[in-house]
Amino acid sequence: MLEPVPEDWRRFDPVELSPILAGAAEAFHEQGYHATSVRDIANRVGLTVPALYYHHGSKEGMLVALLNGGVSHLYARVRRAVDDADPTPTARFSNHIEAVTLFMVHRRQFAVLDSEIRALSAANRRTYAKLRKQVEDLLLSIVRDGVATGEFVVAHPEDTVRALLGMIQAVATWYDPAGLLGPDQLAQRYVEISLQAVGRRAQNP
Amino acid sequence: MLEPVPEDWRRFDPVELSPILAGAAEAFHEQGYHATSVRDIANRVGLTVPALYYHHGSKEGMLVALLNGGVSHLYARVRRAVDDADPTPTARFSNHIEAVTLFMVHRRQFAVLDSEIRALSAANRRTYAKLRKQVEDLLLSIVRDGVATGEFVVAHPEDTVRALLGMIQAVATWYDPAGLLGPDQLAQRYVEISLQAVGRRAQNP
Repeated sequence: MLEPVPEDWRRFDPVELSPILAGAAEAFHEQGYHATSVRDIANRVGLTVPALYYHHGSKEGMLVALLNGGVSHLYARVRRAVDDADPTPTARFSNHIEAVTLFMVHRRQFAVLDSEIRALSAANRRTYAKLRKQVEDLLLSIVRDGVATGEFVVAHPEDTVRALLGMIQAVATWYDPAGLLGPDQLAQRYVEISLQAVGRRAQNP
Repeated sequence: MLEPVPEDWRRFDPVELSPILAGAAEAFHEQGYHATSVRDIANRVGLTVPALYYHHGSKEGMLVALLNGGVSHLYARVRRAVDDADPTPTARFSNHIEAVTLFMVHRRQFAVLDSEIRALSAANRRTYAKLRKQVEDLLLSIVRDGVATGEFVVAHPEDTVRALLGMIQAVATWYDPAGLLGPDQLAQRYVEISLQAVGRRAQNP
C-alpha cells in the first residue's frame, strides 16, 4: 500500500496513498477514529459512501489498511537498513534505530494511528501485532548478538528492546518539523542514546 | 483533583475521582475524546447534561481537569520521590524514573489521555505543557548535575531526558496487569535501562 522502500533506505519521498486512504488518515488524525464516519471520509475525497465500502469493506478496513501498510513498510525499511550495515551488532543496531526513528519523523501520520489499535477487532489486532513484532524481533536478535560478542551489556534484552522502541515511537507524537533538530540529526541522537542504553558508548559523543 | 500523594510515594491507592470525572475518563478512554458527547458522560454517571456543564463548563473542561490533575499529581509524586533520595544524582535520578514508571502503570487511565491533547485549545495546551514540563525540568537538572559530578555521560541532556520520558510514557499504552512483570519489577527494569542510557551501569545488573 505504501510506496516500495527506495534503494537508499534513508530517503523518504512524499507518501503516495490512494485518495481514500489519504482522506481516512487525515480524518482519523484530526478527529480520532471513533468520531470519524465513513461519510466524513467520502465527503473529503469526493466519493460516495458505497464506493468507500466497495474498496475497504468498512471504516475498520481503512484503519487496518493504514496500520498494516505502515508497519509493513517500516519493517521492509528496517530490514534493508540492517542488511546494509557492517555485520557487527553495533552497526546493525545503529542502522535499525536510525531507520525506525526516520520513519517516526517522516511518516508521523501512520505512527500516531498506533494509539487507535484498541478500536480494532481482536483478529485484526493480532495481525497488526504480529507485523509489528517483526520489527521488535529483529532488534532483539541484534541485541542478543551484541550481548554474546560482548559489545553490549544488557540484563533483560526483551525489556530494553521494548523500552527503546516505545521511546522512538513517542517521537511521532511530539516531533515538530519547525523545531531545532532535523530528521537526520534527531535520528543520530537517538542512535547515540540507544547505544548507551545497551551499554555501549557512542563513538562521537 | 487526584488524591494527595501519600507519605510513601511508591504507594498507589485506588483513585478517588468525582463520579463525573471518573465517567469522563472511562468514556474518553473507550471511545476517544471526539466521539464522546457530554450526554454520553451524563448517561454513564446518572446526571443531567446541565449538571455536567455546571461543574466543568464544557467537555473540554473535563479533559482539562483530568489532564492537569493527572500531571500535577505526577509532579507532586516525583518531587517527593526525588526529595526522598540520597543527595547523589544517581539516587535522585533513580527515584525520579521509578516514580514516573509507577505512575504510568498505576494511573494508565490518565497517562493515555495524553494522546488527546491535540483536542485542547491553544491556551489549555500551553497550561498543560507547562505542568508537564516541571517533570521534565526536574529530571533535566538531575541529569546535568550527574554530568557535572562525572556520574553520568550524556552528550545532549535535553534530548536524552525527552527520550527517556517518552519511553516511560509508552508503558501506559502497552502495560498489561496480567503480564509477567509487576509494577515494582517493571519500574526497577526501567531504572536500570535509564541508568545505562545516561552512561551509568546499574549496580545489580
